Amino acid sequence: MSSAEQNVNAYGWAATDLSGILSPFHFTRRANGDNDITIKIFYCGICHTDLLLAKDEIGMTDYPLVPGHEIVGQVTKVGRNVSKFKVGDKAGVGSIADSCGKCDHCDEGEENYCPKVNWIFNGQFEDGLRSYGGFSDKIVINQRYAVRFPDGFPLDGAGPLLCAGITVYSPMTYFGLAQPGTHIGVVGLGGLGHLAVKFAKAFGMKVTVISTSPAKRNEAVEKLGADSFLVSHDQEQLQAAMGTMDSIMDTVSASHSLLPLVGLLKTNGKLILLGAPAPPPELPILPLILGRKLIAGSACGGMKETEEMVDFAAKHNITADIEVVPMDYVNTAFERLAKNDVKYRFVIDVANTLNPPF
Amino acid sequence: MSSAEQNVNAYGWAATDLSGILSPFHFTRRANGDNDITIKIFYCGICHTDLLLAKDEIGMTDYPLVPGHEIVGQVTKVGRNVSKFKVGDKAGVGSIADSCGKCDHCDEGEENYCPKVNWIFNGQFEDGLRSYGGFSDKIVINQRYAVRFPDGFPLDGAGPLLCAGITVYSPMTYFGLAQPGTHIGVVGLGGLGHLAVKFAKAFGMKVTVISTSPAKRNEAVEKLGADSFLVSHDQEQLQAAMGTMDSIMDTVSASHSLLPLVGLLKTNGKLILLGAPAPPPELPILPLILGRKLIAGSACGGMKETEEMVDFAAKHNITADIEVVPMDYVNTAFERLAKNDVKYRFVIDVANTLNPPF
Repeated sequence: MSSAEQNVNAYGWAATDLSGILSPFHFTRRANGDNDITIKIFYCGICHTDLLLAKDEIGMTDYPLVPGHEIVGQVTKVGRNVSKFKVGDKAGVGSIADSCGKCDHCDEGEENYCPKVNWIFNGQFEDGLRSYGGFSDKIVINQRYAVRFPDGFPLDGAGPLLCAGITVYSPMTYFGLAQPGTHIGVVGLGGLGHLAVKFAKAFGMKVTVISTSPAKRNEAVEKLGADSFLVSHDQEQLQAAMGTMDSIMDTVSASHSLLPLVGLLKTNGKLILLGAPAPPPELPILPLILGRKLIAGSACGGMKETEEMVDFAAKHNITADIEVVPMDYVNTAFERLAKNDVKYRFVIDVANTLNPPF
Repeated sequence: MSSAEQNVNAYGWAATDLSGILSPFHFTRRANGDNDITIKIFYCGICHTDLLLAKDEIGMTDYPLVPGHEIVGQVTKVGRNVSKFKVGDKAGVGSIADSCGKCDHCDEGEENYCPKVNWIFNGQFEDGLRSYGGFSDKIVINQRYAVRFPDGFPLDGAGPLLCAGITVYSPMTYFGLAQPGTHIGVVGLGGLGHLAVKFAKAFGMKVTVISTSPAKRNEAVEKLGADSFLVSHDQEQLQAAMGTMDSIMDTVSASHSLLPLVGLLKTNGKLILLGAPAPPPELPILPLILGRKLIAGSACGGMKETEEMVDFAAKHNITADIEVVPMDYVNTAFERLAKNDVKYRFVIDVANTLNPPF
């Protein structure tokens, strides 16, 4: 960064210990460099990963931690080399804060798999400053890691696209699931699952929602437009659906058997896992072999496909179904999120409810 | 079959009970129909599946059972509609005896995944006759399920291509592993593994053999042409190789952990399982997710790719490394096979050693 400006003051809400309880917090972001933009944050989604890291459930949290990686707002400053944005543009930032920019993954626009990727919070930049997320007033970021939202895109429901949305969109395209007329199963109807249904329908796929909860049938079919609904513990329904799906996207992190899911797949079918249950489930190898099926994992996505995803979402009017909450509701939102008590994503109205802490 | 000819007498060796011990056996094959060819069997390979079914270890054997699905010989008769073969041609037959011919899989030449596929032994044809394998003097088969070997192809080492060979070739092409310059790991150096090394080298890949047995290093590198060798329980070697492989083909049916194998893969790497250990191993989901890796299964292959494989093998002089044995050695061969005491495939010299039982 050749612009030798002063770092800038920022404020937000941070977790400071294992309780995961957030409170107002004052911190520093780098000055806007030549390749950077500064975004005034309007909205930020709340993802399960925010909760996990706030409570250090993965054992890698460096407190204080400002969560938030589903960030949307408006560009207020651009560096001299910035061509992708101008002041006033609507912009979004997801999980990626930085990467090496030189490796094969970066060349391919798969910065999320760069060995030196730096995440949007709980990371550290080369200048020594820590990375803090979107539960805050503003963010300074290299233009490469921000996406532009077209005029008129509803920004409140846009943030969750940048984590939940790209997490389901990326494997749909990378693994070739997104073929019109094919049949996809979506396991779990939460933040990821409800967006998987929307994207799959927009790709022209037949969608069956697979859930433990019969009560979600109406929501899945009537509201989200799924073609059918399968109660996962109903053996009769399961048997009737065996061998009928080209692909399944499994968004569930709670422990569950993969055998019935592999059975639901046709020959050559693909099961994509987005959640990581602990302990790990058994791998049903024989059904994989006999049906040339595959099981794969996938995590968020790179900038190239994130931009594609936003274009696709804009074209097909896809946003997340959300509950907008004020900043000081975040601890309650975390409690409710832990119980999956949200349809389907909390979004913090940052611009209107985040007050300077002092 | 419009040719209303008499069924024909055939003889071979059959297992008749759970002991799995084979003895001479007289049976009936159908008359050569309009679309059929009759093959005088020269050689037949011995695969682990022959042993499993002879002893009914899968619980689906219908005795008496004539094993053998790596069959090569010479065409002695052709039906009036046969265009693919003429009398005197060298021909081979693998696992597939029949299929519906109408489904999507059959249309794609993936008859092995046809829901009505009939295997070369332990099956039953529509005319009520049972299917018997290649430990016998002759076979009558629809031309669709036979492949032609070009003149000069060494027939003794050709049979194992029709099961072991296609089983490793098929996923190399279907899952896109066969990219020159990429790095493949081959787990296990048996019938499948040694052919995987040969095919992978012919595709221009870098090959690392992964084995529990340090004694196999010379064989793998000096004789088969592998580029390197990794002892799977040597933590130092394992750590040094982490994240270096584009794909791994795992041919081992004995119980083993998949976690180190997934770790050996690069981001976007592919682990193909050809053996089905019992009990099933744990699925290491988190490493799959973090590296967008996949685990798939695969079993033999269809006729289209079997023909491609034979052409490729002929071009690159690939045959199996074999130990040729007489028909009456088959029970000893089974005992040795159960202990993996063969480099790398037994082949029965049927034409010269199978004597009529009466």
